[in-house]
Amino acid sequence: MTNTLLRNCHALVPDARGVPTIARNQDIVVRGNRIVALRPTGQPPEPDLDVLEAHQMLAMPGLINTHAHVPMVLFRGLAEDVPIERWFNDFIWPLESNLTEEAVYWGMQLGLIEMIEGGVTTVADHYFFMDQVARAVEEVGTRAHLGWAVFGSRGLKALEETAAFAERWKGGAGGRITTCMAPHAPYTCDDGFLRASVEHAKRLGIGIHIHAAEEMNQTRASLERRGMTPIQVLDDTGVLSVPVIIAHGCGLLPEDTERLSRYRDHVGIAHAPKTYLKLAMGLTPIPALRRARIPVGLATDGAVSNNTLDVFESLRLMALMQKHDASDPEVLPLSEALDIATRGSAAVLGMGDRLGQLAPGYLADIILVDTSGAHWQPPHNLAAGLLYSARASDVQTVMVDGRVLMRDRRLLTIDKARVLAEVARHMERLAQRVPNARIQTYKP
Amino acid sequence: MTNTLLRNCHALVPDARGVPTIARNQDIVVRGNRIVALRPTGQPPEPDLDVLEAHQMLAMPGLINTHAHVPMVLFRGLAEDVPIERWFNDFIWPLESNLTEEAVYWGMQLGLIEMIEGGVTTVADHYFFMDQVARAVEEVGTRAHLGWAVFGSRGLKALEETAAFAERWKGGAGGRITTCMAPHAPYTCDDGFLRASVEHAKRLGIGIHIHAAEEMNQTRASLERRGMTPIQVLDDTGVLSVPVIIAHGCGLLPEDTERLSRYRDHVGIAHAPKTYLKLAMGLTPIPALRRARIPVGLATDGAVSNNTLDVFESLRLMALMQKHDASDPEVLPLSEALDIATRGSAAVLGMGDRLGQLAPGYLADIILVDTSGAHWQPPHNLAAGLLYSARASDVQTVMVDGRVLMRDRRLLTIDKARVLAEVARHMERLAQRVPNARIQTYKP
Repeated sequence: MTNTLLRNCHALVPDARGVPTIARNQDIVVRGNRIVALRPTGQPPEPDLDVLEAHQMLAMPGLINTHAHVPMVLFRGLAEDVPIERWFNDFIWPLESNLTEEAVYWGMQLGLIEMIEGGVTTVADHYFFMDQVARAVEEVGTRAHLGWAVFGSRGLKALEETAAFAERWKGGAGGRITTCMAPHAPYTCDDGFLRASVEHAKRLGIGIHIHAAEEMNQTRASLERRGMTPIQVLDDTGVLSVPVIIAHGCGLLPEDTERLSRYRDHVGIAHAPKTYLKLAMGLTPIPALRRARIPVGLATDGAVSNNTLDVFESLRLMALMQKHDASDPEVLPLSEALDIATRGSAAVLGMGDRLGQLAPGYLADIILVDTSGAHWQPPHNLAAGLLYSARASDVQTVMVDGRVLMRDRRLLTIDKARVLAEVARHMERLAQRVPNARIQTYKP
Repeated sequence: MTNTLLRNCHALVPDARGVPTIARNQDIVVRGNRIVALRPTGQPPEPDLDVLEAHQMLAMPGLINTHAHVPMVLFRGLAEDVPIERWFNDFIWPLESNLTEEAVYWGMQLGLIEMIEGGVTTVADHYFFMDQVARAVEEVGTRAHLGWAVFGSRGLKALEETAAFAERWKGGAGGRITTCMAPHAPYTCDDGFLRASVEHAKRLGIGIHIHAAEEMNQTRASLERRGMTPIQVLDDTGVLSVPVIIAHGCGLLPEDTERLSRYRDHVGIAHAPKTYLKLAMGLTPIPALRRARIPVGLATDGAVSNNTLDVFESLRLMALMQKHDASDPEVLPLSEALDIATRGSAAVLGMGDRLGQLAPGYLADIILVDTSGAHWQPPHNLAAGLLYSARASDVQTVMVDGRVLMRDRRLLTIDKARVLAEVARHMERLAQRVPNARIQTYKP
C-alpha cells in the first residue's frame, strides 16, 4: 500500500457549519486507504510519501452514483424519444432478454471506464448477473454497493439466489464492495416478496435498494389499486425498517415525505434528473426532502435513459431544474447542490461516516479536477465552476481506497482498448429485439 | 488557400426530406472556403487535396451560437443564485462599468478559445467595444455576426456610433464578419430609438439583434405600461420589417407567435436554455414556434448566466426541457433537435443558404467530433450520441471558411497561454462592484 501526498490543490471541504467551501492551496496526506491530514501546502513532505502534484487542480471527494444499472451502457441509444411504458415494454425488457454473464461483465467494465474518467468512484448498482459486476469492480478497483435486481414474478427461489449473491460479496474486494437486496419495485414485487426481501436483509445485516414512486402515475396507480402510495407499501411491508435507497421519488406525495422523515437516519433518495427529463417523469421534490432532512444523493440511472454515467451532469441538472420548477433562481444555491453531491450521496448509501468528505479518517476516494480549461477561466468562483462549468473530461486523476486508478487521464487498472473491442463484439446481438421475449411487463 | 479532403467520416446531413441523418463513411471535399463534394469514401483523393483523416469521427456543420455576449466570460461565476433584477442591477451592469477596450479584446479571445474547443464556428455577438470583438474574430479566423449593444438612455448619437461600427465591419475579415444593429431591448429603448435603429439598418442593408420578451414578467409589464407586448412593440416600430434575431422569447404569448409567423422569412428566435433555467425565466415555446415555421436556433447567452459557451449543452437542455415541460417524451425527437442545431440556427442568422449543412456549395465550416470515447460506446446510435452523450471536449478538429483552426484539439490560430495570462491580469479589477456605477438599470 502506498502513501501519497496530493500537493497544492484547492480542496472542496465542509466548513465549520458543514457548508461546502473551497480551501485553497492544501496538501492532502493519504496513508493506506484513509485520508490522514489536510494542511496548507508548503511543509516538506514526509519521506515515505509519494508526491502527486496537484497544482491548479480542485480536489473533491470522489463522486458517488447512488443509483445505476451500469451494464445497460450496452444498450446506449437504443430507446430514444419514447414514453415510459414503451421504453420498458418495447425496448428495455426485450433487450435485456439478450443479456449474458459475459456481456454484463464487459458492459460493467465499459461503464467503469466511463465513470472513472468522469470522477465517479462509488456506484450503487442494481442489475443482473451481479457476480460479473462484482468481479469487474474487484478487478478495476472502484467502490460499489451492489444489489441483484429481481422481479416478484421470478419467485422466492430467485430472491434467495440474489440474497446468496449479497452474502457472497458482502465486504468483498477488500471491503470496497458492500451489498444489498434489490427487489425491483413495489409495482413488480408483491407484498410477500417485499417482506421476504426484508427478512433476507435483516438476516444478512444489509439494506435494500429499490425503485419506488418513480413517477406520479405509479403513485396514482398504487392508490387506485390498493389505496396506498408506493411509500406506504414500503412502510407496510417493513422495507423502511432496514437501510433503503429509493429511486427515484418523482411520484412522492407530501405525506410520503412526512412518512420517510421518520426513517431518515437510514433511508435516502437517489435523484437522476436526466432520466426524468428524457422520459418526462416529473422531478423528485428535493426542497421538501431537504427540509425534512431526508438524505438526497445524485444518480445517473442507466445509460439507456441518461444516456451517460456523468454525475457532473446530474449535479448541474439537479440545480438547474429545481430553480426552473420553483420559478426561483435562489433555490438550491451552490453550497447546497455541492453538499448533495458529496455528503448527501454518501448518506444515501449509509456511508456518511466514511465517504463524501475530504477529512482525516475518511476513506481516500479523491478526484482531482483540472480547472485550467478555458471554460473555467477566469477562476473567480471555483464552486460555481464545479457546478456549472465542469465537464466529466476535466477529471484528471482518480484515487479510490488510497490507490490511483487514473492519473492525468490515463487509466491504470483497466485495458480500455480490450474492453471497447469486447463490447463491440457483443453489440449487434444485444441490439436485437424480440418483443415477446421481454423479461418483465410494465404495468404499474 | 488549401484544399482539403476529410477522409472517411460519418457525416450529419439532411436526407431528401430535410431530416438530419447520419451518412456513414463519407469523404468531404473542400476547395477554398466551400464544400464541393460529399461522397462515399474509397475513391483516391485528387492530388491537390490535403488529406485529413477523420476515421471514427462524426462530421457536422460547425455549431452556431445565435445569441451571446462573449466577452462576459470575464465575469464568469460572479453572479450566482440571484433573481434577474438583482442579476442585472447588483451584478452585471455594475460589473460592466469596469469594461475597457483591452479587457473586451482579451475576453473575446478567451471566449473564442472556449467556442472553438467546443465546436462553435459562428457566433452572433451582442456586446460593447465591438471593434475589439471584430478584431479578435478577424485574427482568430471564426465567423461572427456582430452588433454593438446600446441602450436608449445613451441617445441617438451613441446609436449612430454603433451604426458606424456596423458599417465599418460589414463584410469584414474576408466576409467572415457580418454586422447588425443591436438596440438592447424594448424595455431599455424607447420607440423613437427603435425606429432610428430600423432606419440605420435599412440604410446599411443589415438586420437587428435585440432582446425581447425575455420572460413573461417583461411581457406583463409591457402590457400594463402600454397595452402592447414587446413583440407588438417590435412590429409597431418597424423592427420586424428588417431581418431580426430575437433573444429569448420566454415571454411570448400565442398572439406573438402568430404575429412573428408573418415575418418568418427574416425573423428568428435565439434559444439559450441554460440561462433560462438558472434565472428561472421560463422557456421559449419551441413547439409553437416550429409549428408556425418560425426559425429557432441555439444560443448560450453570456457566461455569467450560462456559465459556459457550450452549444452542445444548449442543444441537450433544449431537447430535455421541452420533453419535461410538455410532460411528453416524444416532443422534440432527435431529428428535430439536430435540425434546430444546424439548419435552424443558420436560418436565425439569415444564413440558411450558406451555413448549417454539409452540402456542396455551402461554406466549409465543419467540425469533427470524436465518437470513440467510452461515453459514446457502443455506437448503436450516433445521432443520439450527438444529442445526449457528446461533450464539447469531444470536438477534435474545427474548420472555418475552409481553414483548420483546431486540429486534434490543438489550437492553430490563437495563443492560449497568452490569452489566459492576459485575462488573469484583468481579473481582479473586473470583479470589483460599485453598484452606483452601473451602466443601466433593470426595470422592465
